[in-house]
Amino acid sequence: MTFEQQIQHKIDFKTKPLGALGYLEQLAFKIANVQQTLTPELKFPTHVIFAADHGLAKDGVSAYPPEVTFQMVMNFLQGGAAINVFCKQNNIAMKIVDAGVNFDFEDHPELIKAKAGYGTKSALTEKAMTTEQLEFCFTEADKIVNLAFEKGSNIIGFGEMGIGNTSSASLIMASLLKESIENCVGRGTGMNDEQLQHKISILKQVMDFHGNITNPKEIMQTFGGFEVAQMCGGMLAAYKRNMLIMVDGFIATAAFAIAQALEPNIIDNAIFCHVSDESGHKKFLDSLNQKAILDLNLRVGEGTGCALAFPIIQSAVNFLNEMASFESAGVSNK
Amino acid sequence: MTFEQQIQHKIDFKTKPLGALGYLEQLAFKIANVQQTLTPELKFPTHVIFAADHGLAKDGVSAYPPEVTFQMVMNFLQGGAAINVFCKQNNIAMKIVDAGVNFDFEDHPELIKAKAGYGTKSALTEKAMTTEQLEFCFTEADKIVNLAFEKGSNIIGFGEMGIGNTSSASLIMASLLKESIENCVGRGTGMNDEQLQHKISILKQVMDFHGNITNPKEIMQTFGGFEVAQMCGGMLAAYKRNMLIMVDGFIATAAFAIAQALEPNIIDNAIFCHVSDESGHKKFLDSLNQKAILDLNLRVGEGTGCALAFPIIQSAVNFLNEMASFESAGVSNK
Repeated sequence: MTFEQQIQHKIDFKTKPLGALGYLEQLAFKIANVQQTLTPELKFPTHVIFAADHGLAKDGVSAYPPEVTFQMVMNFLQGGAAINVFCKQNNIAMKIVDAGVNFDFEDHPELIKAKAGYGTKSALTEKAMTTEQLEFCFTEADKIVNLAFEKGSNIIGFGEMGIGNTSSASLIMASLLKESIENCVGRGTGMNDEQLQHKISILKQVMDFHGNITNPKEIMQTFGGFEVAQMCGGMLAAYKRNMLIMVDGFIATAAFAIAQALEPNIIDNAIFCHVSDESGHKKFLDSLNQKAILDLNLRVGEGTGCALAFPIIQSAVNFLNEMASFESAGVSNK
Repeated sequence: MTFEQQIQHKIDFKTKPLGALGYLEQLAFKIANVQQTLTPELKFPTHVIFAADHGLAKDGVSAYPPEVTFQMVMNFLQGGAAINVFCKQNNIAMKIVDAGVNFDFEDHPELIKAKAGYGTKSALTEKAMTTEQLEFCFTEADKIVNLAFEKGSNIIGFGEMGIGNTSSASLIMASLLKESIENCVGRGTGMNDEQLQHKISILKQVMDFHGNITNPKEIMQTFGGFEVAQMCGGMLAAYKRNMLIMVDGFIATAAFAIAQALEPNIIDNAIFCHVSDESGHKKFLDSLNQKAILDLNLRVGEGTGCALAFPIIQSAVNFLNEMASFESAGVSNK
């Protein structure tokens, strides 16, 4: 038997109807295959939230004012955000990264300073970041992921906070998938019809200004943000260390799509944790031929989908390790 | 403000975009409303698995032989089944009930004996159980749920094991919803096309033999099984004690539908944990106007959906209790 056949054999002879654990069986297969063992383990699950500000946020592409980015970072540090609650519940270590917030934070044990700037430039009139800033984002993200890896973590989630960052994600998606902006734009944190039309009009102007860009790194440089670039770099860093990568919603998936364009095999290590309420996210997952674990109409960001899905991923590992086989339990098979 | 408005206000002023926690917000609202407190708690989560044999199982309505029912009960008692793994992971207390298995079990600390018979009669030629057996099932289930309640549990899940019991559930559903058998039948634990056609033909004969039955208790008595009747009685018992009721897949939902026909308000306390791969389950949920937490193509039974969904239910309670508000965190609202 090949190793893949050995995994499938172990799954199939557990005391349950063939295939009856559904998507959990696919998860168990993936995790065993990544770790190249029939008894995989999830060690020191870690979640990193990258925060940054966006030049485009001043142009009315969000329902919230830009200062919410730094205020929410303070909230993360004080433990009051949704992601704090869910990471605490599921014993996931959490770090917050200032990837480029327009605010100077004091030192804090949970805060990693990797500031690429005080927010990106507006992509309406120039590229969101310089090539130096983009490389800085990738280098810093690699260091940050390495810290978790060196502590023994083999599974990592990525979250984001950045008022205006659904616009970055929409622009990345439209460029990568060669889709119209309309098909890649949603209401973000909650816009009305008029705000949505304004957002679409702004993003179309951005697309027209920059023309057709196909190089994945140039797409990231052009549309940002710093937190999206650091998530992308973090995912590549996690793949390089053969960690499992928990991918959250729309923005994390945009970061992932760029990472995949640079390293196609990264898909082997990726676990898509939820399909967000943001229109376009499902289309994006379909383009990657991926299904998400949860579909709970979440659109809070922060990587909340990763933290909420983690117990399900753990269940996939546990059934593979702990369930009896037909033979060991003395149960008749078909 | 009404109490319902107070709950909604507390949810809406958490530091997240309005409605951004999606279905978790609906869960939090439901739980707070059931418990009539803005700081709800999930106490001593409990899972009860009812097992029984089915007269119809001898007529080829399952891909597995009838002895798998008692063999799987032994597997539950030895801790080797999927439900054992998931309950252990999520700290859910688990009890197994012999509701009517065709086997005499030795005493075991986790086994509750509430045997209504050595399997039901075949509904092809007579009612699955007597009225006395049906009443016995309801009375025993009430006692079993009361044991958990008296230990302080306020949330309870119900699972089942019984080769042939998707047939009971299909017959119940067809009768209650006045749907055709074809629309209510699935492949159970895994049938091929020929087996499925045979199952449909048998179930149609059953429906023709008994004619149109509308009384919910008579539907249960006619189509069984003992474990479905005890789940139904257990759900009513949990509602009577204002516990939260975790409803699993197709068979549990059939038991719930009978319970709801007898006590319409039980829907207030019900949390639908997953939508199963069994065709007809989604239709059933739609008829109750309910959405499930998970959609993972599970069809293992045992109440696995409840155990897997429990951490998500806990997350709903935790965000309500632990997240900061815009005001307390100093975050700007829209």
